[in-house]
Order: sequence, then C-alpha cells, then structure tokens
Amino acid sequence: MAEFHAALSAAAARAEAALDALLPPDGPDPRGRLAAAMRHAALGGGKRLRAFLTIETAALFGADPKAADRAAAAVECLHAYSLVHDDMPCMDDDDLRRGKPTVHIAWDEATAVLAGDCLQTLAFEILVHPDTHPDPAIRAELALALARASGIDGMVGGQALDLGAETAETALGAEEIAALQHLKTGALIGFAAEAGAILGGAAADARDRLRAYACDLGAAFQIRDDLLDVEGDAGAAGKRLRKDADAGKATFVTVLGAEGARARAQALADSACARLEPYGARAAALAQAARYAVDRRA
Amino acid sequence: MAEFHAALSAAAARAEAALDALLPPDGPDPRGRLAAAMRHAALGGGKRLRAFLTIETAALFGADPKAADRAAAAVECLHAYSLVHDDMPCMDDDDLRRGKPTVHIAWDEATAVLAGDCLQTLAFEILVHPDTHPDPAIRAELALALARASGIDGMVGGQALDLGAETAETALGAEEIAALQHLKTGALIGFAAEAGAILGGAAADARDRLRAYACDLGAAFQIRDDLLDVEGDAGAAGKRLRKDADAGKATFVTVLGAEGARARAQALADSACARLEPYGARAAALAQAARYAVDRRA
Repeated sequence: MAEFHAALSAAAARAEAALDALLPPDGPDPRGRLAAAMRHAALGGGKRLRAFLTIETAALFGADPKAADRAAAAVECLHAYSLVHDDMPCMDDDDLRRGKPTVHIAWDEATAVLAGDCLQTLAFEILVHPDTHPDPAIRAELALALARASGIDGMVGGQALDLGAETAETALGAEEIAALQHLKTGALIGFAAEAGAILGGAAADARDRLRAYACDLGAAFQIRDDLLDVEGDAGAAGKRLRKDADAGKATFVTVLGAEGARARAQALADSACARLEPYGARAAALAQAARYAVDRRA
Repeated sequence: MAEFHAALSAAAARAEAALDALLPPDGPDPRGRLAAAMRHAALGGGKRLRAFLTIETAALFGADPKAADRAAAAVECLHAYSLVHDDMPCMDDDDLRRGKPTVHIAWDEATAVLAGDCLQTLAFEILVHPDTHPDPAIRAELALALARASGIDGMVGGQALDLGAETAETALGAEEIAALQHLKTGALIGFAAEAGAILGGAAADARDRLRAYACDLGAAFQIRDDLLDVEGDAGAAGKRLRKDADAGKATFVTVLGAEGARARAQALADSACARLEPYGARAAALAQAARYAVDRRA
C-alpha cells in the first residue's frame, strides 16, 4: 500500500493548496464571512479520495499536473457543497463533520445554504476557466460531465432517493441500496477519475473504464463505511456514528449481514482492480486505493 | 411599447418551451418528486425579463435562435434556483411566489434545498452542452460568465450582503444599496444580456456595452419594485408586499423618498437607452424594456 498512501498524501496537499488559492478570501464583512464558511467547508478535511483519483488518472494519461490540481479542487468544491447542504437540519441534521462543527452550527442555516450554493458555482467556474486547460472543448467536456454526475441523474438524485427511503413503508433491498449509492456517491467519484482522463485527452473507452473503476471503488468504500458505522468510534471517524442504524435505515450491513457486506465490498474491489489491468504497474496506486477502500480502519 | 410587449411575450413562450423540454420529467418516485419541484419553481411564472434579454441580444448579434432559447432557459434555471433558496425559512421565509406556494411550502425544506441545487447544476449543464453552440469556446465562455455573475462576486455575494444588512447596526445608504443590488440582481441580469452577445460572437466592447445596459435596466427595475412594494397590492404582484418596510430594511424609497427614487430610476433608464444608441432601431424592444422597467404597474 506504500504507493497509495504516498500518492494520497501528495494529492491531499496539492488539492489543499489549489483550494486555498481558488477559494475567495475571508474577511470581516458579510461576503468575507460567507467566504470563511466556504473555506471552513472545503479546506482542511477529509481523505481527499476524489482529489487523489483526479490527480492519479491525470498522471496516467499524461495531463498537465497544474490542470489536474485545478480539476481536483473543483471536484472537492462540489463534494464540499453537497456535505454542507446534506448536514443541514432539514436534511441529515449533523452537527459534526470531519471533526469540526458543521457550517450551520458554526455560522447559521442561511450561511450554510449560500456557502453550499457558492461552492457549487465555484466548481464549475474552475473547470471552465482557461487556466484549467488551453482547449475549450476539454473545459466544456469537464463541466458537462460534472453536471451530469452531480445533478438529478447523479448525486442530488441519489440524495432524493435517500430522503424518500426514510419515509418509505418497505425497507430497501441490496440492489436498491446499490442503485441509490451509485447515484449519491458513485457518480461524483466516477467523475473524479474520469476528469483526469478527460484532461489527458483519453478516448471514450478509457474514460468509461476509469469511471467504472472509480464507481466500483466508491461502492466498496461505501460498504466499508456502513461496516465502520457499526464497528467504529466517533473520535476516529470525526462524525456521528450509528446514525443509519438509529434511524432504522437499510444498509448493506442490515440487509446482507456483516459477512455478506464484507464479501460484496471485496468483490467490488476485485472488479475495480481488474479494470486497471491495461495500465499495469503505472496504475499501482489506483489499484491499492481499491484495496484500501475495503481494508481501512477509519 | 408595442415592440417590447410583443417581444417579451414571445421570449416568455420560447423560454417556457425550452425549459419544459430541458427540465427532467416528474413522476411518482423520489426523483420524479424532485423533478416536479424543479418544474414548479422554473415553469409558468415570472415576467421572463432575463429570457427576453438573452433572446433579444442574441438576435441583435445574429445568433441562432435555438441557441438563444437554450441560453435563456439556463438563465431562468439559475434565477429559479436563487428564488427557491431565497424563499426558505432560514432566508426570506416567503410562502408565496409568482402567486403559487413556494417549494418548501408545497413540498418541504429538504426538497427546496435539493431542487435549488439541481436547478443550478442544470443551468451549467445546458450552457456547456454541444446543442447550445457548435464552438466549445463559446460554451465555456457562457458558463464562465454565468459562474462569475452568480457566485460570491455576483448574485450570492449580494444575498450575503442583504443578510448582513438585516443585522447591521446602521442602515445602508443609497450607494450601499446600489452596490448590494448590483450584485444580488444586477449581475445575473447583466449576464442575461451578455449571453446573447457571447452567443453571437460579439467583441468584448459590445459584450460590456450590453451588460452595462442590462445592469442599468436591472437597477431601475429594482427601484420600481421598491416603489411598487409600498404602493402596490399583493394580488397583482403575486407575492407578499411591504415585507422590506415591515422588516425595517433600507430601500431607495426609505433613503431617497418616493420622488427621489423615481428620479434615480428614470436616470438609470436614460443611461440604459443611451448605451443602445449604436444599434439604432434594431434595439427598439430593448430600449422599450428600460422604459417599461420604470413605468410598469406590477
């Protein structure tokens, strides 16, 4: 796992630096206060798995590392926006995120709405800015793929399914959970990997392959989250645990049992690695990421 | 005003048809329910002033009318997202919009957050889609200009200033109100007009000229809104009135008085018309729009 951990740390540092430069400056006036909330949400937290995927796939296809850093920052802005809105009282009602108070706790709900809104806008602004790539066709393609991954046919559609499941009379089955998570988290993780391929001018089949790899990885990661949710401790995770079980929500663990969930995650990691075979040792860190998704302790 | 009213009606019908085709289909499942909330927010309402500006400026620069319809739909999606979030209880807390219940009233707050989020995503998706223009440089430029007009240096920055003004110890003066409204509503109205110029491949000075025209028009329109807010009736306006006065909020009417506000709006309309002089009679509907902004009864 040495390549993966080194690459993840490097990607996190690069994404953090890019975000710091791209996010608006905070200050004492109302816009500076909004910028501070955006920075709180987007900086200094998370594993930066999405940034890692963009930066590693960009390297695989020979893209400019500076372009990769900008695309990685855009993906992390989009992800941060979804967390800020998802944590609000009318959604998941979470007070803690990445070990810090959530935006609506540290500021207020109105600021959480606006900070999330602005982080989404910034994600698109970064991708279509000429600094991201000299070819406007690449920039437009990045923004189109991000929009598809994060709108009603992607991430937000998955959040709608998740809210619907809470009030449904019958609990979801394994394939319904898989479909929900594919939209809610898989689509954006898939885009993160595809973004590097787009930046590198990869052909459509390579783009599809990298996206499918990341969707498998993301699904495995999510199942491991469900397992950690029943096994782990909140201090290590930096967020409230057992909230799914407390809410009576179906997860792979409740539907398949812990052993069944582990087996499914393992099969997804195997599938993710198989998709990387054409790239051999050059994709070592990406393959290790799939193994890490199912072996991690937090 | 005959050209303006005919052009506004035509633009509204074209934007409505484009939105109907571009918005996701509603249905009985959770994503269909989210789509229904998006359609509720984006269809069947408003004057469609932004769509008119995009469609008219596109015609002025010889752009493809179908491209103009898509860009107009994108601007209206972005505007609709801002209204859905702005109406939420933690923001302006409005129950009524365009004579219909707001999204968080007709559905719930979580649906309002997600419907707004998805409408923003859809705005960018429409602009960068190849159907909007064959040249990706035009598509990327449209998305970049929209992001700048609607993020922290534009619309959402203005909303942050507006929220800050509510809790500030001293009321805003006329120039502070102008700066706030320039961000909150002017920036997107400016983009709406600039979008047609971008689609038509206009030079930078023409883009700037059309954007400045629309910013003047938008500012005049906003002052007329403040005047109607103290003069008008809720039935004609389709929304709650006197909420600014009730909230003790500074407007041009409270700061300059009704006569002073009327004079300022008139000067802005004059400035807007002067900017259109190079285009002569071809810009008749656009010039009439600036006159309409200050003369309208609702």
